[in-house]
Amino acid sequence: MKDQIPPSNAGIGPKHPDLHASKTLRQQVFEYVRAEGRTARADVTRALEISPGSATTLTADLIGAGVLREVEGAARESGRGRPPVALEVVPDAHFVAGIKLSDQQHTAVLTDFAGNICAEAALTVTAGQTNLTQRVDEVETLLTMLLETSGKTRDEIKAMGVGMSGIIDHDEGTSVWSPLLTDSRVHFRDALFARLGIPVEIDNDTNMLAMAELWFGVGRTMSDFAVVTIENGVGMGLVIGNQLYRGMRGMGMELGHTKVQLDGALCRCGKRGCLEAYLADYALSREAATALNMTPDTDQSTQAMLSALYAKAKEGDASAQSIFRRAGRFLSLGLSNVIQLFDPELIILSGERMQYDYLYANEVMTEMQAFALSEGRTPARVEVHAWGDLVWARGATALALSSLTDQLMGAEAWAK
Amino acid sequence: MKDQIPPSNAGIGPKHPDLHASKTLRQQVFEYVRAEGRTARADVTRALEISPGSATTLTADLIGAGVLREVEGAARESGRGRPPVALEVVPDAHFVAGIKLSDQQHTAVLTDFAGNICAEAALTVTAGQTNLTQRVDEVETLLTMLLETSGKTRDEIKAMGVGMSGIIDHDEGTSVWSPLLTDSRVHFRDALFARLGIPVEIDNDTNMLAMAELWFGVGRTMSDFAVVTIENGVGMGLVIGNQLYRGMRGMGMELGHTKVQLDGALCRCGKRGCLEAYLADYALSREAATALNMTPDTDQSTQAMLSALYAKAKEGDASAQSIFRRAGRFLSLGLSNVIQLFDPELIILSGERMQYDYLYANEVMTEMQAFALSEGRTPARVEVHAWGDLVWARGATALALSSLTDQLMGAEAWAK
Repeated sequence: MKDQIPPSNAGIGPKHPDLHASKTLRQQVFEYVRAEGRTARADVTRALEISPGSATTLTADLIGAGVLREVEGAARESGRGRPPVALEVVPDAHFVAGIKLSDQQHTAVLTDFAGNICAEAALTVTAGQTNLTQRVDEVETLLTMLLETSGKTRDEIKAMGVGMSGIIDHDEGTSVWSPLLTDSRVHFRDALFARLGIPVEIDNDTNMLAMAELWFGVGRTMSDFAVVTIENGVGMGLVIGNQLYRGMRGMGMELGHTKVQLDGALCRCGKRGCLEAYLADYALSREAATALNMTPDTDQSTQAMLSALYAKAKEGDASAQSIFRRAGRFLSLGLSNVIQLFDPELIILSGERMQYDYLYANEVMTEMQAFALSEGRTPARVEVHAWGDLVWARGATALALSSLTDQLMGAEAWAK
Repeated sequence: MKDQIPPSNAGIGPKHPDLHASKTLRQQVFEYVRAEGRTARADVTRALEISPGSATTLTADLIGAGVLREVEGAARESGRGRPPVALEVVPDAHFVAGIKLSDQQHTAVLTDFAGNICAEAALTVTAGQTNLTQRVDEVETLLTMLLETSGKTRDEIKAMGVGMSGIIDHDEGTSVWSPLLTDSRVHFRDALFARLGIPVEIDNDTNMLAMAELWFGVGRTMSDFAVVTIENGVGMGLVIGNQLYRGMRGMGMELGHTKVQLDGALCRCGKRGCLEAYLADYALSREAATALNMTPDTDQSTQAMLSALYAKAKEGDASAQSIFRRAGRFLSLGLSNVIQLFDPELIILSGERMQYDYLYANEVMTEMQAFALSEGRTPARVEVHAWGDLVWARGATALALSSLTDQLMGAEAWAK
């Protein structure tokens, strides 16, 4: 750019956004009905500002395609005369599966097209990294369990979502690095598709949790919020304008690896001063090893060690308390950075470590607010949602439903 | 949220986005032509995937409204037969002004509807905070200067953009805190409108610079990028999907006040460990005062002091070098945090302090990359754009043009 402006016939302003990426009107109608539940056709007309004629044509298309149906007597505006007719998603139009892979136990769920759970499954596995084939085997086992419970066939499952911790490139479908896989840069999505014949989306597990909140939780009333998870690492998911935001090139939101101290504590990523190097399991357990002579061994998992550390702190042990206190202060700092940058109305804290109330004690929340600029602002709210793995797996079904909808409703698919 | 799912007729999925907020097709046509410069009608048809008939109707509307016009002989596809006809924005349909308020000299620019500069003005002012009336006076003086130079009347100016450093609430039109205003929470936008009778948008100056890049700079070829400014403070502007992103409630992007050290250096905001407390003018000058016995007095402004410090560093003074070296390391850290969270392809560094090449030396860039997770990622590029104030003022005109377009092209305005 120069101070000399270009001649006016060269144009100014942002390059025109990719208009092709916007949703078809048909998809907007479908998603409106899905979000509202049972809906009168007149509400669709009003909400989308389309003519009654267009609404009739579009919903007729969707009914013809078997994804919407008319039901009687459930519309909002009841009155005299014939019973009103409402629209709703056809639950058994399609089925999807969602899976959360974890260090010790995987969780899976099968839902219909309206999000109703048809089957659940869990599979206990050996902790630690293993190879791709082993993980694909496990996903196939879980899928088989879901099919047996639900009585569905593999052909009926139209999409799958799989979430796992690590650095996951959703767009490329690769696990760049994961504590669950021995190898780096693994084409996990393609491997699953090759084995199962079902289109798969993979994502970071924190993004899946954000999807669960967006589809089934706070997203039902809020369009923008942040999710921060504390487990073996520190994760972040961001929803902007009703959409999961993964960063400009899809690999952002690595809150756990933002630096909170120059040349600070060593992180498992090999760098120094990362937020998670003060908060994650390994950070707490190495401090416990130093001051409390506690060492994880084969009989004592890191989690058992943390439970023991927590018990000591509760009993009044000053060293144990100082470990949690410092972790809490760094959590305050990390959350205040989220507030400064994203100005969220709500931050949802989640993950297994939320069982340790030191991490969301009053003093942690007070310090978080004290760290952040306050003038002219409404403080961000923090809520702790201590969901079980089933909710994460449901987030994976949301990923599957979302991708399936794009595929079914896009202009290209419809032209077929 | 519970593990129990709601009945399917309650709906699932994100609540339907605010469809009313989307742009009218008419506005999309106008903005496409503005972005392309001279454009054939057939290109509009193709780009927006509308019928030739719709394109004809919509462009006829816009020509009738006096904002687009037909010109001959400039379309892309030249051939035999009659000369092709192209569309372009009518430059003198409307005029806007953009102003950057600064500590020592304000800058102003008046442009036509196609972004051509018609007049420029600058006004030297007394440094420091002053009251609202004084700042409104100064803006009025600048506007008068622009009108005299351009020969336009006040009535012809349809919108104004005003940018200044500080915490500016764009949506509310208030200066929450600014180094230029004595009072906090000042309704600056309304005060300007009351005096000038012209609709005004106010914003943080870094956001204005991001707007300048979006409308006239890298935004002409990129839809997503970050801008980081180092001046008296540290600012950040973010463009996502061709739009300025200000955070969920409009008060985010405060990179300068993210914490990079627990209980760290004191910031002028009163808190400790903010990034800008290691990078901004006041941070460097207080270190210079400590180690080099340099003190700003009435004869020596902070900037003069920094120039002297820089000269010393260039001469080989170890203390002076260590001051810049530390600032550079914190800049590396701050930029790596931007990379971790937003995963940008490009970060533009700008602001007056970019004259000190220590801040973007090879070692700073190398350390920035070393701090960030690299596996599976393409490193972010960093470019230094050392624009003068005129470019910031042009960013303010982009803000004005953008708001004027929304106002002119919205469904409501058109119905009148």
